[in-house]
Amino acid sequence: MNQRINRIQQWLQQNDYQFAFISDPTNVFYLTRFMCEPHERLLGLFIFPESEPFLICPQMEVHQARNAGWHFELIGYQDHEDPWEKVEKAFQNRKLNGSPTAAIEKDTLPFQKAMSLRRLNEQLSFASIESFIASLRMIKDEKEIEILQKAAEMADYAVNIGVNAIKKGRTEQGIIAEIEYELTKRGYSEMAFPTMVLVGDNSASPHGHPGNRQIKEGDFVLFDLGVVVDGYCSDITRTVCYKHASDEQQAIYETVLEANQKAIEAAKSGVRIGDLDRLARDIIADKNYGDYFTHRLGHGLGLGAHEAPSINESNDDQLKKGMVITIEPGIYVPEVGGVRIEDDVYISEQGPVTLTKFPKTLQIIS
Amino acid sequence: MNQRINRIQQWLQQNDYQFAFISDPTNVFYLTRFMCEPHERLLGLFIFPESEPFLICPQMEVHQARNAGWHFELIGYQDHEDPWEKVEKAFQNRKLNGSPTAAIEKDTLPFQKAMSLRRLNEQLSFASIESFIASLRMIKDEKEIEILQKAAEMADYAVNIGVNAIKKGRTEQGIIAEIEYELTKRGYSEMAFPTMVLVGDNSASPHGHPGNRQIKEGDFVLFDLGVVVDGYCSDITRTVCYKHASDEQQAIYETVLEANQKAIEAAKSGVRIGDLDRLARDIIADKNYGDYFTHRLGHGLGLGAHEAPSINESNDDQLKKGMVITIEPGIYVPEVGGVRIEDDVYISEQGPVTLTKFPKTLQIIS
Repeated sequence: MNQRINRIQQWLQQNDYQFAFISDPTNVFYLTRFMCEPHERLLGLFIFPESEPFLICPQMEVHQARNAGWHFELIGYQDHEDPWEKVEKAFQNRKLNGSPTAAIEKDTLPFQKAMSLRRLNEQLSFASIESFIASLRMIKDEKEIEILQKAAEMADYAVNIGVNAIKKGRTEQGIIAEIEYELTKRGYSEMAFPTMVLVGDNSASPHGHPGNRQIKEGDFVLFDLGVVVDGYCSDITRTVCYKHASDEQQAIYETVLEANQKAIEAAKSGVRIGDLDRLARDIIADKNYGDYFTHRLGHGLGLGAHEAPSINESNDDQLKKGMVITIEPGIYVPEVGGVRIEDDVYISEQGPVTLTKFPKTLQIIS
Repeated sequence: MNQRINRIQQWLQQNDYQFAFISDPTNVFYLTRFMCEPHERLLGLFIFPESEPFLICPQMEVHQARNAGWHFELIGYQDHEDPWEKVEKAFQNRKLNGSPTAAIEKDTLPFQKAMSLRRLNEQLSFASIESFIASLRMIKDEKEIEILQKAAEMADYAVNIGVNAIKKGRTEQGIIAEIEYELTKRGYSEMAFPTMVLVGDNSASPHGHPGNRQIKEGDFVLFDLGVVVDGYCSDITRTVCYKHASDEQQAIYETVLEANQKAIEAAKSGVRIGDLDRLARDIIADKNYGDYFTHRLGHGLGLGAHEAPSINESNDDQLKKGMVITIEPGIYVPEVGGVRIEDDVYISEQGPVTLTKFPKTLQIIS
């Protein structure tokens, strides 16, 4: 039995839940290696405390599910068939007791699909499986670390393309086009989120929208991007200057860099997550830029571009071996510009390992 | 009062529903002109049969909602606040009766959000508003037709780039990179769906994945793409040949073209939708390719790349003035290749108007 599914079975047993219904394509992929985006159609992985799981998906995807290595019961359905009838049939030899509980993805499962589950038992109640799955996904195995390392390398490559594309008059969108063109040619056409290149003033907006602003001398140019490799996301931010950097720009940059480096050094298993955020925040506040660091220090990274854990001040959990997180302090001063430096960091047995390697000393592009 | 919201108010009155809760970002945009992608955060438009609607969104989006022209009650919330408490407060002067019904997007609204609505009234039941909103979105107004025309022009432009990029040894992904690079440079970086360029054998797969296949002489090259303009999608397919076309390839092409053209001519207000599909299907079957046309004739187009109506054989509804649909017959012969020709067609008072205009006579690229 697949080890991840096994963990869910144990959890169902401990909580006395009668089954789990997992429908989010990313969670199904995590548990089965089968990637399927069925849109409004039904994709469902049913896991039971004792008996074998089954999977239901559109008929045209059945072959791919088998190819992905799914060896348990597999139910396909055609567009003209009612998939829930087939689910009911699959439950005939998996009797539910009087008032059963199903563990579902409450925050994403559409209401109608939860109601369809009630066809199995009118008294069905629902519990949430989301934080449990998040706790599994949070700890990466060796294979996942390898893929995340590769995704980080592609992010480094992408930033390098972007930095080389900087020249006077180039627009934010123009540089994005260069980056994605080169990546697509190498076969990496999926980005982890819309690529951001922000120039001048616009870099001071942590969620700015790239547009037709042209690069001019003395501008910060901020790159925030991620590349998807085998389903896993990287996430890097680098900021450079064009032609020259003012004293204030240099002071901002050095402060962010110190916060980034000190936080990475401290990112060891056992550290309270909130304290890591606090450490970076204190460094920035000491230089009187505290009011300009307006977001959390980082987040977990994996099949999702943002996943658990959240690296924020009030998170009392500890860093654990196997986590991969971003560390991305920033300072955003309106009218001057913004700097963010973000790395992907693997919390290994031996300590923090930085997966993204693009140089971080202040680069002044001429 | 906004006319679209007014239609929903009338519908609530007719059905004796106490309120509508609309949370899908595209539906909210359709009804308010406010585009907001709040991810897991709450975005909610509450509409009442008699009284004024209100909108709730993250605090950082409030300004944008006002800019988009929302003049009614607007509630923002910070990340540390419970947005549902604010919803409860907003309901204090909008009393619900004993066993009220809320109209919700059952097929997309997450289970947990529906349960949160029960905080307003434990007895709350739910009805579906989705097909009603789909019926509104299906009929486009003049302004929407203008935007869809512009999106179709950008799709023509994109195919033109792709056709010009064809040369021996170019890969599918290489051509996609060229297309998206040029579009992004012109400021159109959002595609309606992942761009498809399929070459040779691979064109015989209606949902094929573009990869590193290289173009060789005698190949079909199939382009299926759409460009998003102001939120609205286009969707075009063209198929060309590289260097030469066999007799069989020409026969397939001419059959698909005839089906495309005859179906467009017939696409007039009042025609049964299933009959339109049937007309194209019969043309293809008459040439003995019936088994190779394996999908519906088309679908509605608008804020969604696929929306109502579905142009399939069993749809008994009629075409109506104001609809914009795709007409996209195809023939896919394994080992020979596939041809699909797809246009965006506006059902006007005067008859069908083809919005996509890239030439359709068989092009042999040398």
